[in-house]
Amino acid sequence: MPVNSEFPIVHLVSEPVNPLKTIYIACRTCYSADYPFNIWEKDADKQAMLDLVGKVLKSGHHSTIEHCQYTFTISGISRACTHQLVRHRHVSFSQKSQRYVVEKGQFEYITPSTVKSVGLQGDYAELMDKINEFYDKMIQKGIPAEDARFVLPNAATSSLVASLNLRELIHIANLRLCVNAQHEIRKLVGKMSALVIEKEPWLEEYLVPKCDRNNYCDEIKSCGRYQQKVL
Amino acid sequence: MPVNSEFPIVHLVSEPVNPLKTIYIACRTCYSADYPFNIWEKDADKQAMLDLVGKVLKSGHHSTIEHCQYTFTISGISRACTHQLVRHRHVSFSQKSQRYVVEKGQFEYITPSTVKSVGLQGDYAELMDKINEFYDKMIQKGIPAEDARFVLPNAATSSLVASLNLRELIHIANLRLCVNAQHEIRKLVGKMSALVIEKEPWLEEYLVPKCDRNNYCDEIKSCGRYQQKVL
Amino acid sequence: MPVNSEFPIVHLVSEPVNPLKTIYIACRTCYSADYPFNIWEKDADKQAMLDLVGKVLKSGHHSTIEHCQYTFTISGISRACTHQLVRHRHVSFSQKSQRYVVEKGQFEYITPSTVKSVGLQGDYAELMDKINEFYDKMIQKGIPAEDARFVLPNAATSSLVASLNLRELIHIANLRLCVNAQHEIRKLVGKMSALVIEKEPWLEEYLVPKCDRNNYCDEIKSCGRYQQKVL
Amino acid sequence: MPVNSEFPIVHLVSEPVNPLKTIYIACRTCYSADYPFNIWEKDADKQAMLDLVGKVLKSGHHSTIEHCQYTFTISGISRACTHQLVRHRHVSFSQKSQRYVVEKGQFEYITPSTVKSVGLQGDYAELMDKINEFYDKMIQKGIPAEDARFVLPNAATSSLVASLNLRELIHIANLRLCVNAQHEIRKLVGKMSALVIEKEPWLEEYLVPKCDRNNYCDEIKSCGRYQQKVL
Repeated sequence: MPVNSEFPIVHLVSEPVNPLKTIYIACRTCYSADYPFNIWEKDADKQAMLDLVGKVLKSGHHSTIEHCQYTFTISGISRACTHQLVRHRHVSFSQKSQRYVVEKGQFEYITPSTVKSVGLQGDYAELMDKINEFYDKMIQKGIPAEDARFVLPNAATSSLVASLNLRELIHIANLRLCVNAQHEIRKLVGKMSALVIEKEPWLEEYLVPKCDRNNYCDEIKSCGRYQQKVL
Repeated sequence: MPVNSEFPIVHLVSEPVNPLKTIYIACRTCYSADYPFNIWEKDADKQAMLDLVGKVLKSGHHSTIEHCQYTFTISGISRACTHQLVRHRHVSFSQKSQRYVVEKGQFEYITPSTVKSVGLQGDYAELMDKINEFYDKMIQKGIPAEDARFVLPNAATSSLVASLNLRELIHIANLRLCVNAQHEIRKLVGKMSALVIEKEPWLEEYLVPKCDRNNYCDEIKSCGRYQQKVL
Repeated sequence: MPVNSEFPIVHLVSEPVNPLKTIYIACRTCYSADYPFNIWEKDADKQAMLDLVGKVLKSGHHSTIEHCQYTFTISGISRACTHQLVRHRHVSFSQKSQRYVVEKGQFEYITPSTVKSVGLQGDYAELMDKINEFYDKMIQKGIPAEDARFVLPNAATSSLVASLNLRELIHIANLRLCVNAQHEIRKLVGKMSALVIEKEPWLEEYLVPKCDRNNYCDEIKSCGRYQQKVL
Repeated sequence: MPVNSEFPIVHLVSEPVNPLKTIYIACRTCYSADYPFNIWEKDADKQAMLDLVGKVLKSGHHSTIEHCQYTFTISGISRACTHQLVRHRHVSFSQKSQRYVVEKGQFEYITPSTVKSVGLQGDYAELMDKINEFYDKMIQKGIPAEDARFVLPNAATSSLVASLNLRELIHIANLRLCVNAQHEIRKLVGKMSALVIEKEPWLEEYLVPKCDRNNYCDEIKSCGRYQQKVL
């Protein structure tokens, strides 16, 4: 069945207890004679921590934010989108397997907004129903799920558990919040970023498209918000 | 159009000039007072190199074979298969983009053998034609390729350039040559392994299912060739 | 100054709130039609979670435990040891920099037990004092810390913040708890494992030398506890 | 013994047969309906390949250059330097082991130029001799190499075989050719880059400090060649 406009469904199910403090002791450990656990125990002032961490991040030393990992549950995102999502090699994924899970009833699918704009939404839904019918027939004839899925479209949704550290989340946000990114992944990464910012508002300035951090655009096709870098 | 049984098409387009010697100096460097370039220049006897490298690999020190990288071109493999293939995070991939490349004429697709066994091959081909027709219609109506592809099935083929080092190739062979692996990836990895063995016959004993190296099976569902490990 | 026998100092400063449940939903997501967040909300029985997770781990599907990350502070470990520790490429490290931090007073150092056994402890301490004196002289003459450190020995201690996921921790424990591992890293990994087992006792059977999991030894030089694998 | 000013010794022992063509088919595969092996066979014009690859690299799509791997032998570099070098996690290293290799005669060491500037070269050499003498005594008393090495200084040299792909080499050059990098690693990476540029002159514009690519400096302490980025 078609999913509604609230999709994808994203929840943050695990986050570090004290990310700012963890990053702070990582930064301090590099430049201090003191033991890191002593620094941890001393409980620095929040503003002092924000100042140091901000300075370190702005000079590009992002290894210190690898110490904070976030885990998300994601549902209602097309296999077209997950195929590109799993290319981010520093994210750990557990994804619903079409080899093992048999789709029962009508499989869930995404309808791109451009399909609606040109008035093909009805025909699109009809094709999905036809595919679904044939998938059911294949399963009934004894074809294993891993082969029956060959007829399922890129539009069919998937579910994942995804864990990534803050360095990778910022990297992905910088890339995928760009208007040139595919619409679903842009929406997904926007939701992931919002969930983290809700917990740690000071991260808002990093979880943005790359142009907002660089003050220029290095895309071949620019949206015009920033001047293009002369290549 | 349906692809024939010779698929996938795999070619080895780049390989190290002297892999055995490269691995040999890597092994020797760890345990020698001599400079590695001196070891390189000395030109050891082939059997001596094979003996040392064999001993190192059998004791599990696989980091020394990361120095050899192989590049393959791959075509005629389903998107179902490439979605799992790209999960191997130590492989570098460049894949044909369905966002940018418009499928012209009839898109190429895989037909699993089980579809033929139950006599659904005709109906399957008919469904593929219907999907193709609708894809064309979407493109004609001005829907961008990245959205039109939502109707393309997992069966649609893709092309990739893939590079990986010998450690990763052996790891993937050990996993994917198992009878439990998906049929296409098993065939693909078999072809990749054969191309490398053609160049370096001494690698044959490593490019096998894991059971042949372990002398036991650790799969939940065993094919029976080896005794299952008591878990 | 020489460090005492309680070293290295290791603390666990950040761990996942609910690791078993996180791994459980990762395992379930792969094989379930349900949304992962629904599985999360349902709150499974602890024994059911342990049973599933145990079965998945024993069949070698370790990707599901990448979702749990642990952060440790480490002090009082030699630079000899940290040079090999940082070779574990899936761990995130922030390490005290000898380029930036000037050693004040007497630098801290490790004395291997074999030095004591042969009665060279006094001479060893004397040499360390001489090195320390010359280091101070270099600093006073205006040599920057990054060059003065060239005289500091491998014995000099370092501090790190280290974060790693459960898959990597088990991998490292399997390798580094072996009697063939260097004595400091063996002690360090033993302490890290104990801190995690204290929180999650069910992990005890995985945080062991590899032989205890394989029921054989694949080291070239065996301690004799298990039969050696015929290579 | 002290090493001379020609150090480190760096050789390129393995490189891809046809790196430009390999990168070209990787770029083309992403945007073409043709099979990659057909593109390979067609043999494009060199200027056309340079134009496409240049355009792709400048827009930041560096994954296509992961297909080219280079292997270097490196000797005469301090353990101070190798400890930071091995932090580059995308490089494969095989390094001379101080645990297994006993230093015979006088161990080789680096003397930073600042030691010479302040006139401490003689005292420095004397300290190295004293350390060497004590190391020999430890070995004679039966202390294993892995413990005797605790007295060896950061100045002691090491040897490595290092393999890395072009993406990582450019990344490392961008970081380590900066005047703020440690002097040995800067010299080492300069030599590695020169060896690759000798084979592939078109890579010269990428194997430079990051400021030359960004047209600004993002270091906290700038050398003044470029304007500092307002952070």
